[in-house]
Amino acid sequence: MKKYAVIVAGGSGSRMGNALPKQFLPLAGKPLLYHTLTAFLRVWQDLQIVLALPADHFQTGLTIAGQADATGRIKTIAGGSTRFESVKACLEQVEEDAVVFVHDAVRCLISSALIERCYRETIAKGNAIPVIISSDSMRILEEGENRAIDRDRMRIVQTPQTFNGALLKMAYRQPYRSFFTDDASVVEYAGGKINLVEGEYRNIKITHPIDLLIAEELLKQDQKDNPASPQ
Amino acid sequence: MKKYAVIVAGGSGSRMGNALPKQFLPLAGKPLLYHTLTAFLRVWQDLQIVLALPADHFQTGLTIAGQADATGRIKTIAGGSTRFESVKACLEQVEEDAVVFVHDAVRCLISSALIERCYRETIAKGNAIPVIISSDSMRILEEGENRAIDRDRMRIVQTPQTFNGALLKMAYRQPYRSFFTDDASVVEYAGGKINLVEGEYRNIKITHPIDLLIAEELLKQDQKDNPASPQ
Repeated sequence: MKKYAVIVAGGSGSRMGNALPKQFLPLAGKPLLYHTLTAFLRVWQDLQIVLALPADHFQTGLTIAGQADATGRIKTIAGGSTRFESVKACLEQVEEDAVVFVHDAVRCLISSALIERCYRETIAKGNAIPVIISSDSMRILEEGENRAIDRDRMRIVQTPQTFNGALLKMAYRQPYRSFFTDDASVVEYAGGKINLVEGEYRNIKITHPIDLLIAEELLKQDQKDNPASPQ
Repeated sequence: MKKYAVIVAGGSGSRMGNALPKQFLPLAGKPLLYHTLTAFLRVWQDLQIVLALPADHFQTGLTIAGQADATGRIKTIAGGSTRFESVKACLEQVEEDAVVFVHDAVRCLISSALIERCYRETIAKGNAIPVIISSDSMRILEEGENRAIDRDRMRIVQTPQTFNGALLKMAYRQPYRSFFTDDASVVEYAGGKINLVEGEYRNIKITHPIDLLIAEELLKQDQKDNPASPQ
């Protein structure tokens, strides 16, 4: 089956307090985006990447893509003003008869095992959304009030959100709605039933400055556990 | 106003894959629990701590309490088999006319600023529950299915959950119910209206092994930013 990874690197990174978007910040000697790209490229030789870059930093992203792959497996496009528009634009480069991983560029610690799990589940069930359980209690805001919500019923959603190409392309033909915060919500609103798979606690989204420190530590630990593993 | 911190250190730490409960694991040269105790002791001279310890590790906890304070400000009791029972037992040592902080022993990075904010809000409004916004999408399980839930309406709950003593003691007179995962849910079920305050992203709960690495990094950074700050 054909495999595409749609990598969304369009964010402006305002929460990091840094002029350079967070996907370009250095991590263990390489830009964060480099780690994310190679995490997918190494799983299958025939996987192709469609990479949405912010227009303001297009050249920076292009250079990183060139470092990660020199064999034409990464196609770059200019991202839109929202995540929805960026994914939609990427999907024009993707075939219907394929498995499509949609992944946040800032989740650079994604493992091969999780990518493979999402692939197998998508072949079997049409889509695979990695989720983890919350170890914290949660509350929900409602009409100016707030109330407890059972955390055992809540799941925190990660990426890669993985879909049959035809299903995902169909769903992204809908007009944008404000509650489309991820691909699962887009597919669900188009009538698709969402299939959850077990995510990974370490598959974090680099959002706040301390997340970069965490990622550095985790990569150091990986090198210690397996000195021959690729960076 | 009198101030009590109820510190719940009764967990068995099974998720850490370690025989020693996580609240006793070392962090920057001191047991995790030591950091948590001193974080409260240093805010006010007149704050007292009631510490619930696991029966199996009572002596270990007692030794750590002695290291953190030698002036009788920490009272130790044997925790119950659930968090609810432990808090309930601690509250017998607490006066009604007081502000009571209930805090997870494994949230050792709690700042003085957050403790003070919870205190002021509790004086003004009867309780204060620190929450943060999720940067991840969320889904909710319902009758074998799952659906997206608007993450902008969700809040992740931290501790110290802070209450007027009379309110909290009254709420803990209820029988235990399975959805009592924190103190806010207990007080809410007893009819109290919950008042949210802004938590701190770094006020993490040490749950998984990588959380200890994160905490080490954050403490190192604190030392760098402010070499004179207490450990």
